[in-house]
Amino acid sequence: MPYTSPVSDFRFLFDHVVDLARATETELYADATPDVIEAILTEAGKLCDEVVAPTRRAGDTHPAVLENGVVRTSPGFKEAYQQIAEGGWVAIAASPEHGGMGLPQAIATAVNDMLSAANLSLQLCPLLSQGQIDAIEAHGSDAQKALYLPKLISGEWTGTMNLTEPQAGSDVGAARAKAEPNGDGSYAVSGQKIYISWGDHDVAENVCHLVLARLPGAPEGTKGLSLFLVPKYIPDEDGTLGAANSLRVVSLEEKMGIHGSPTAVMEYDRATGWLVGAEGAGMKAMFTMMNNARLGVGAQGVGIAEGAYQHALAYAMDRKQGATASIVDHADVRRMLASMKADIFAARAITLACGTAIDMARATGERDWDARAALLTPIAKAFGTEVGMRVADDGVQVHGGMGFIEETGAAQYLRDVRVTAIYEGTNGIQAMDLVARKMMDGGEAAFALLDEIEEVAETARATLPDLATPVWQATETLREAVEWLVAESNMNARFAGSVPFLMAFARVLGSYYHLRAAMAEPEGSRARLARFYITRLLPEHAGLIAHARSGAEDLFAITPDDLAA
Amino acid sequence: MPYTSPVSDFRFLFDHVVDLARATETELYADATPDVIEAILTEAGKLCDEVVAPTRRAGDTHPAVLENGVVRTSPGFKEAYQQIAEGGWVAIAASPEHGGMGLPQAIATAVNDMLSAANLSLQLCPLLSQGQIDAIEAHGSDAQKALYLPKLISGEWTGTMNLTEPQAGSDVGAARAKAEPNGDGSYAVSGQKIYISWGDHDVAENVCHLVLARLPGAPEGTKGLSLFLVPKYIPDEDGTLGAANSLRVVSLEEKMGIHGSPTAVMEYDRATGWLVGAEGAGMKAMFTMMNNARLGVGAQGVGIAEGAYQHALAYAMDRKQGATASIVDHADVRRMLASMKADIFAARAITLACGTAIDMARATGERDWDARAALLTPIAKAFGTEVGMRVADDGVQVHGGMGFIEETGAAQYLRDVRVTAIYEGTNGIQAMDLVARKMMDGGEAAFALLDEIEEVAETARATLPDLATPVWQATETLREAVEWLVAESNMNARFAGSVPFLMAFARVLGSYYHLRAAMAEPEGSRARLARFYITRLLPEHAGLIAHARSGAEDLFAITPDDLAA
Repeated sequence: MPYTSPVSDFRFLFDHVVDLARATETELYADATPDVIEAILTEAGKLCDEVVAPTRRAGDTHPAVLENGVVRTSPGFKEAYQQIAEGGWVAIAASPEHGGMGLPQAIATAVNDMLSAANLSLQLCPLLSQGQIDAIEAHGSDAQKALYLPKLISGEWTGTMNLTEPQAGSDVGAARAKAEPNGDGSYAVSGQKIYISWGDHDVAENVCHLVLARLPGAPEGTKGLSLFLVPKYIPDEDGTLGAANSLRVVSLEEKMGIHGSPTAVMEYDRATGWLVGAEGAGMKAMFTMMNNARLGVGAQGVGIAEGAYQHALAYAMDRKQGATASIVDHADVRRMLASMKADIFAARAITLACGTAIDMARATGERDWDARAALLTPIAKAFGTEVGMRVADDGVQVHGGMGFIEETGAAQYLRDVRVTAIYEGTNGIQAMDLVARKMMDGGEAAFALLDEIEEVAETARATLPDLATPVWQATETLREAVEWLVAESNMNARFAGSVPFLMAFARVLGSYYHLRAAMAEPEGSRARLARFYITRLLPEHAGLIAHARSGAEDLFAITPDDLAA
Repeated sequence: MPYTSPVSDFRFLFDHVVDLARATETELYADATPDVIEAILTEAGKLCDEVVAPTRRAGDTHPAVLENGVVRTSPGFKEAYQQIAEGGWVAIAASPEHGGMGLPQAIATAVNDMLSAANLSLQLCPLLSQGQIDAIEAHGSDAQKALYLPKLISGEWTGTMNLTEPQAGSDVGAARAKAEPNGDGSYAVSGQKIYISWGDHDVAENVCHLVLARLPGAPEGTKGLSLFLVPKYIPDEDGTLGAANSLRVVSLEEKMGIHGSPTAVMEYDRATGWLVGAEGAGMKAMFTMMNNARLGVGAQGVGIAEGAYQHALAYAMDRKQGATASIVDHADVRRMLASMKADIFAARAITLACGTAIDMARATGERDWDARAALLTPIAKAFGTEVGMRVADDGVQVHGGMGFIEETGAAQYLRDVRVTAIYEGTNGIQAMDLVARKMMDGGEAAFALLDEIEEVAETARATLPDLATPVWQATETLREAVEWLVAESNMNARFAGSVPFLMAFARVLGSYYHLRAAMAEPEGSRARLARFYITRLLPEHAGLIAHARSGAEDLFAITPDDLAA
């Protein structure tokens, strides 16, 4: 079932839904002309369709393996990765100073989306490099930038993130890995890290690990963590690779999905590393990496949803049954396909709006755009991956019995996408971030966004009242929930409904972007899809908000003994 | 992570929620005294915990294989199956006339639930035998009953259902398999059937296939289908096995889950079979088998949910993080666990209410009970399996990164349960059945159930107003939806929202059963869980009903071209 990158969807979203032009009219992105964007999207789409997508199934059926301490990746991965790298696609948003294209993050998000649809396991490799590039750009020394950035941006070297330890999952502050000064400016890094995606591989010549570890005498918790850059092979100043570092892959995990992505248990045994950023500022640097990666993971969810949707649609169009031309004429099959498409649009718009906000923040330096990006990041991550899971699940269902057979390929999307709701901070962690940290401004960023929605809905009332009115009303309901939230000082009361709150916020945001699409094409296909979404899916927000506003009392009244009863 | 059968939950549900006593007070079930029920549940629970559950992981890691035309099942399956059979657990509801225990279907449903939690792949084998026993009890000749029922009930032989052909999935009427009279009362059955669960194996000595096929000159469509009993080895009148029949396993499917259940492509090449029921009445007979199996599959979903819940709870109770005693103290983890438990209760109550309605129909012969059972069957199947999927998915999420690692065992629940939403009629087919066939009475059966709920809610208002009021209101909203539905003569308008309608119906039913539980224990653990469900999960019904009542126009306005755009 060939995958076709939805290039024109991205163009439409940029032009009519998320206003990318605001960013590309700034000096910073002056090179990103409409022609350039068109060319970038088209070329990326071609690469994904023709080079990357054909490797997807092999990643599943021939997982990466560890042989004599060396990781061998799935058939075709090395060649496809090299074409990604040679085309300059690893980090198109990276700074031109070190070889990047300096394109808007919104465009990079679109490319990540397409690459993920084509092969999630493989795309994870450049996504991690992107995060590492961001971290080094923001926190690395000039020498580190000069040495590492060109190699990472070109894809000759790849990056990893090393946070998790066996005893410390989401609670990163419990990490025990150690770093001791060697006296020559380098450090000896020791410890075990788990869930290291692309911890080792054969698709590029070097692997650069960013490792959180504790210096001697460092305090407990996250404040005692520093960040170290630990390369697999130690480069000289020119980037020529020297000795192998003292680190190894202990084992690869056998996972539910993304079999093509080698997930390593890494062991560092006085491995040579260099401090990135200040001592004790490791979490801060890591957050730079993670925030970007969170938007990237949201785009992974959307990409997988797109792949699963196309796969299911092609099957349904081809499948005859009874008197119908195809099963697409069955109401329930059409409902599933329309829901899938409508949700993909909503989730994709949120990721691109988040990317655009990042671009606006970079281009204008305005704090409001920073706040907008910060607000949208957890929503983009959690809703993008939630949509990825739902759509992949519906994709299996559209296939009927065939969906459960591995050869069909539908199940792989569902197994692969499952991890996206877990890594880079579980979706529960995203929701906590949204209702706590992202509401520390008293809801200012949220209210600004809700004001924008209501303003657009007011405008749309004249021409599309049946769509504009429910969007406006849902936004008011959401506003009341935000007001409740910021007034609630008991954090557990916020947390107890945080996931439903995030999902309600995403539902409403999705209706806003659908409304904008309908305004751009009031008689077209996009207005019909918007009508479906607003009539059938948006009403979900009310139940979610009721849940979100329930507080914590009834929840904590259910004791652990009750749960075990 | 050991599984413990929730025996006391079943006792509570029978006694306080679904009124099984009404059935056991009838003459038909007079033997099912409270002591007998207690003993049955306890013994079944022990078997599941000690014998069956330990084989679950091996089914996943060592799938059934086809070797030289013979299926070899997973390690430990044969021994566990034999203990199931020897204990008389294959078909406890089967008629005592042929060796069954004649127990209520509600009890059989509880046992199916526990067996599924312990090992879904293995449980599927006796579940199929149960369906075959029902079909032969209802439609077989006296000779067929005398020959086959004792062997199937004892588990010495097992049963399969052969409906699906490669070109005919849910559209069974397109089946092409043929049967020609041999002149001696037997028939030569030829054709290929796919997705035949337990189509061959080594856990019992014979496999009896019920095969839908067409007699010469039979009309097109479902009316031309007759049902044939085609044994793997042809028995003589005493049940002694003779020659191998002319049938074979072409291949086994590689599936997303239930690896321990051999899913065969079967080839019949003039295999000897015997007509069950009248010529052309194959679908009718098959529906007897399927209706029972549908309730059974609903119980599978609930069982898997229970297994996944226990697995996640044990992990969460044990997992320390940060300053908390365990991650159960994190609000979002507790929310997930409470949702899982509350949904399991709701779905389980629906399956047991359905079983009880079947028992009442059998015991009293009253048509109202038949109608109640018919109404509840698609809800029990679709909601039971939906809850199975959601809970297994949350179970993975509670585990965090560990959930995605196969060794943990959480992912197996999710992969295994996925098929239950597809087989025995996809959940979309169940929803169509609910809004069409099950509403052909003008909504009478539905209204009778809603009347019952409102009556109980009225009674509860005095003591539990905060629970009774929303249940009553939700029931009214559902009543309006049923009224809308039965007045809607355009079937596509019903079908377009049929799945959301079914889920809304289940949500409301779940709140009813939770309310009854709270009434029985107003200060206890069950009331706290009911409060959680009614406050947080029940509000979902409103959005679902809005979706259900949207009609078909906006849906079919989205053309196949729009979907492909």
